[in-house]
Formats: sequence, C-alpha cells, structure tokens
Amino acid sequence: MTAWRRLGGKADNAGMGHRLDEVSAPARLAEPEEGISQEELALAARNHGMPLEALRYDVTPPGLHYVLTHYDIPYVPEGAWELVVGGGVRRPLVLGMDELRAYPAVTRRVTLECAGNGRALLTPRPVSQPWLVEAVGTAEWTGVPLRVLLTEAGVEPGAVDVVFTGADHGVERGVEQDYQRALALDVAMGGEPEVLVAYEMNGGPLPPQHGHPVRLVVPGWYGMAHVKWLREIRVTDTSFTGFQQAVAYRLRRDAGDEGEPVTRIAPRALLIPPGFPDFMSRTRVVRPGAVTLEGRAWSGRAPVTGVEVSTDAERSWCAADLDGGDEHRWAWRPWRFAWTATPGPHVLSARAVDAEGHTQPLDQPWNRGGFANNLVQRVPVLCLDSEGAG
Amino acid sequence: MTAWRRLGGKADNAGMGHRLDEVSAPARLAEPEEGISQEELALAARNHGMPLEALRYDVTPPGLHYVLTHYDIPYVPEGAWELVVGGGVRRPLVLGMDELRAYPAVTRRVTLECAGNGRALLTPRPVSQPWLVEAVGTAEWTGVPLRVLLTEAGVEPGAVDVVFTGADHGVERGVEQDYQRALALDVAMGGEPEVLVAYEMNGGPLPPQHGHPVRLVVPGWYGMAHVKWLREIRVTDTSFTGFQQAVAYRLRRDAGDEGEPVTRIAPRALLIPPGFPDFMSRTRVVRPGAVTLEGRAWSGRAPVTGVEVSTDAERSWCAADLDGGDEHRWAWRPWRFAWTATPGPHVLSARAVDAEGHTQPLDQPWNRGGFANNLVQRVPVLCLDSEGAG
Repeated sequence: MTAWRRLGGKADNAGMGHRLDEVSAPARLAEPEEGISQEELALAARNHGMPLEALRYDVTPPGLHYVLTHYDIPYVPEGAWELVVGGGVRRPLVLGMDELRAYPAVTRRVTLECAGNGRALLTPRPVSQPWLVEAVGTAEWTGVPLRVLLTEAGVEPGAVDVVFTGADHGVERGVEQDYQRALALDVAMGGEPEVLVAYEMNGGPLPPQHGHPVRLVVPGWYGMAHVKWLREIRVTDTSFTGFQQAVAYRLRRDAGDEGEPVTRIAPRALLIPPGFPDFMSRTRVVRPGAVTLEGRAWSGRAPVTGVEVSTDAERSWCAADLDGGDEHRWAWRPWRFAWTATPGPHVLSARAVDAEGHTQPLDQPWNRGGFANNLVQRVPVLCLDSEGAG
Repeated sequence: MTAWRRLGGKADNAGMGHRLDEVSAPARLAEPEEGISQEELALAARNHGMPLEALRYDVTPPGLHYVLTHYDIPYVPEGAWELVVGGGVRRPLVLGMDELRAYPAVTRRVTLECAGNGRALLTPRPVSQPWLVEAVGTAEWTGVPLRVLLTEAGVEPGAVDVVFTGADHGVERGVEQDYQRALALDVAMGGEPEVLVAYEMNGGPLPPQHGHPVRLVVPGWYGMAHVKWLREIRVTDTSFTGFQQAVAYRLRRDAGDEGEPVTRIAPRALLIPPGFPDFMSRTRVVRPGAVTLEGRAWSGRAPVTGVEVSTDAERSWCAADLDGGDEHRWAWRPWRFAWTATPGPHVLSARAVDAEGHTQPLDQPWNRGGFANNLVQRVPVLCLDSEGAG
C-alpha cells in the first residue's frame, strides 16, 4: 500500500514535526492507463455496491444495499446517544431515543444512490471510491419528519441553513473533521420531499454501517446529504461552508473552479444482467431464445416516465414496459423488456427519462470529482451457439 | 472494462461460432506494477470485506460480515426449495424447509474467512477477487448437523466423499458449472468440528448473499467449503474431481502443479486500526498518549493460545492479553494491548499462535492462487505532535 510504504519507509524518523498532510494528499486524476491503486482498493474492499441481481427486490434486503462511509463506522450505543437541535432556535432540544420515538413516525420507501456512482468508468478517472454502477439501494426508512422537530424548536428569523453533524470523524484532503452537511432552510422544512430523522431501516434498528442509531434521509438527493450517526442539527444564519459542502461534492471542471453543488439524483436505469456470469470477467452468458430483461429506474428530480432499452450497442432504442405508479414517489420503478437472443456478442443498455425531460447521456458527463454521472449502463453479453453449446 | 471492450469491439461479428472461452480466460498473475484491473474491481465492488472497526463485535452485525459469491446470488424462495440427500445412501431424502426445521437444531458461533484473504497484498498478485485483509466475519449459525441427515439416509459401504451442490451457476476458467465442493466422509460425519446444514444466521433467516434459504457451515474451514444455496448432498464412492476441488482452491507454485487442497483456516490476528483514518489513504492518525489496541485472533487448526503485538515495525514483539475461553471453539478470541503513542510514524502488527504451534509469517507465504495466506497485518499510524496538533 502506498501509505504503508510512505510511512514504513521513514519509521525511524520520529520527532521531526508531524502533520496531517503526511497522510492526506490533494485530490487527483488517474494517469492514462493507470490501474486502480491500493488506496482505491482499500475503499472498495470496505464499502460495497449492490450486486445488480438484487435489482429484483422492491426493497433491498439487509446487507445488499450499497454502503459508503468516509471514515470509520462509529460505535454509538443507543443508550449513549443524544440528538441536539440548536443554533438559531427559540427552544433548543436534547432528545434521547425514547423522546425521538415518542413523536408520530412516518415510513418512506427511498432509493438512495452515491453521488460518485459510475466514477471508476470515467476517463480520466477521479481517484476516490472507485464505483462502477452498483452504488444504489432502496429501503423503507422510518422516523420523524425533520420539519416537526424544527417547528417544535422554533426556528428564529434570519435562518439560512440547517447543519447536520454525524459522529464519524476523520481527515480528508488535510482537513480533520466530523462529517457535516447542510440543507437550505426551505429544503429542510419542505414537504416534498419530506426530510426524515430516521431510526429504522426496513422495520428494524439501523445497522451500524447505515447510521445506527439515527440518520438523516433526504429523499431524492444523492447519498452525501443523508448524514449518518446524526448527533446535532444546528440552525445557522449564514451559509454553511464546511468541507463536505464547499470543497467536496461540487461539480468542477478544474481544481480551481468554485463549482456547482451536487444535489438531487439524476435519472438512471439499470438492468439485471441476464443469464449467468463468468467469475473473473463478469461477462454475461445466455443461450439463444427469449430472454426477459428486467431492471429498475429512478430520478430524484422528477418521477420517471419512461425507460428505453437497446440490444444493439446503442444503435437503436425501444420502449420498455414501466411498472409502479405514484405510491412510492422516491423509490425506483420496475421495468421489463422482451429480448430474443441470437448467437454472438451483444451489448445491452437501458436509459430512463423523467417528467422534466432529464435523461441519460451516451457520452460521459465528466467532472473532476466524478459526481452525478449517469452515463448509460453497458452490459456485454455473449449468446452461445445453441442450447447445448459451451 | 476489458470485457466490454473485447465484446464491444466485435459486436458485428455474430454467427461465427461462440464458445465460453470468449469470455473466460485462464488464471494469471499480475505484471509487476500492474494496478488492479477493472475485472478485479468489478469483483471488489460486489463482494465486500468486514470493515476492521467491526472487529469490536463478538458477533458481526448483519451486512458487515464478509461476502464472496463466485457467480450471481440466486433467488431461491423458501417455498420452492428442496434439499436432496442422495447418491450412495439406503434411504434418499427430499427435504423441504418444514422437514428440515423439524430436526433438533443446534447453534454454533463460527468465524468464517475467505481462502483468498490477503491476496491483493501478494507479489506477484494472483488476479482474482482482490482481498486485502478484511475477508472475515463471525456469525451464530443455526441448523441441523450434517451427520444427523447422513445417518438417517444411511450411508452405504464404500462411500468416499460427500458432494455439496449450490444453486449458484456460472463459468470459471472456461468451465460452466453449478458451484460444488466435497468433504471426505470422515469430515462430513465428524463431531469436532460438526458440520451444519444451516438455515439461520444470527437468529434470523439467511440473507440472500449468505445462502438463503440453506447453506453448509464447516467450522474451522476456509469459506469455499461452506456451500451456499445448498440443494443437493450426494454420497459418492469415488473422490470428487469437480472444478472447485481439483482445479481451484489448491496450493500451487506453478500452473502445472497438482497442488495441495486448501482446507482449514491458518491462524490470524487482526487489530482494530486505532485513532481515525484519512479518507483516501486510509492511514490512521492518533494523538500522543495511551492508546488501547484491540482485536481478534482465530485459527481453524487448533485453539488460539497467544497473540503478540509489535509497535515498532516488527523489530520487537510483546504478549497481548487474550480473552475468551473454550465456550466458542470455532470463533475468534478478543485480545488487548496497552500502547503509548509518541509523535511520528509507527507500524503496528499482531500475530496469533495456536495450540499446535502454527503462527503467522513475516514474509509472504506465496502460492499461485493466493490462498491461505496469513502474512501478519501491518497498520501504518501517524501520531501527531501534540493534543492540539493537526
């Protein structure tokens, strides 16, 4: 590992003045032809995507939902947990689990996607968590609407942002920090989407890696907004300029750009790779004949209104059958398409369109952080010659 | 992706005669300085290790236990599942879930480790699932002892192996297959360890990725023996020579060697990386003063009898305090060590020794598959200059 070599090589070098920049380097892009580094692999080994065959489930089973944690997963026993609602409010709140559970609870089915999904397929590749396309999942989140807590606390005039602090602590690009993100007051108080302070996932306590005991859920927004291990909600009368808001999670062409903030999830359709895989290449194998292609589609910007499928490497597109209605606005919708496989190699793709006309590009939408990239999925499939071939 | 480029580049090339070797290449070693490939990354994105901070838990919470699936996770509803116990038996059995649950159940706490754990740290690197050191986890498995089922079926004289077939199907090194592994009859009928046909993990149904609805659990053996999505148990009067037994999971220096089979878990100690991490380098940061180092140690060969810790890049070693007794013979034991951190870079390591004297090497135990490699863990840590530094 790079870090091991860097530190290991000067382990005799104590007492020289030691600062965070020894372990924390600036963001960078991979060189052309540079393979995935050991540092990127260390992230990929602890975080994980959702194996795409799990697209079959309306609600992703425990352990299959994607996970990204910036630092360590903190250990926060329920008995030791308190949530402070403070800053520019008339009546600050300090809530334990029992107090939080005493509020009327709501449950929402929400599809959550990492802002960096697809990053490792970009050219050049931003060096960070190296997602392919699997950083997604859908869960039923139960908790208290954030606006209920803020209303009870009484937001003072002049409030601008609401800042959320998690119990996770680490260093990033030289900055030591607790993970913090903010929402503008109107988003935090909004009803569609309604932001949740959630303490259950799929009917049980949150698993440690999903924010136990309490996290934020911001339907329709990329994952960075859903602060896990939530311990403070603070109303401010200035715009929040913390690292995860002003430095990370911005759409920039060049390192010096101010950039635009990453917010809502761009539309995406994914298909369950058909047939069966080769262990190492992960290429799919099918036999000639009827193959039902199925998948899911979602958008955090507006409801998904259509999915198109291509079975000829994006030369032509046909409409898929889209199921699911308005019951779960913030969750993915299932779709289905009948394909007749013929011997030879094929490339399958799907793309979603939403009610505001947003769709998915065929050329990569590149930015320096590799965020909000919804390039269409491409699934190579080999159809064997006959039923018995292979 | 390599596969995408390979197939995409000849998508017009249909009807030429299509065979599995188009998608399935022989095993290989990475070139010197070759980064992790997109194919290895595709495996790392769907499988995952246990984040090492989860070593704090006696029993690994759901979703944090390591997962490796060779092919897709099959969808096997309980109602559609049947287990056949057949081959060289006097009374073949066909069991549904209700019949299986009617047998007296036992629960065992078992630490499970992937045979390829540590592979991506080897030089040269065998190209396969690129594990660092996190491919481990501990669960409480509930099910029926295999020997109870085999006794009821009545094993015929001359039996040699018991072959286990899962519902997972794919291609590997050109061979299309259902995942299959065998145990010698004496191991399958043994009492220590007692092999389980398990249908609960930590008191609930098996999650899809851990073998739902039924899997094999072979305490003390590497993960490849614990066949998931189990649907057939077959007694044979010849040695099993299937792919996962005779080709994969063998300790070989060279591709042509017959090799030795991978069997029981070699001893290993891992420590919870102290302090907090840098997001990208994953290097640990601590402040000067007392730091408690904690971790777990296990061996599938014999009970762990000691753990030693080095805080000076393996120049010297001191005994750690080892907890836990004989209650859970097949689970990891916790250990603890008091360290005083001083400013500067450090490298921390731990190593386990078991009752048969097996321990962990400081130089890599290399084989062509990267199996059963228990090289000591090395954790680089930077101690800052003072309480307030950084």
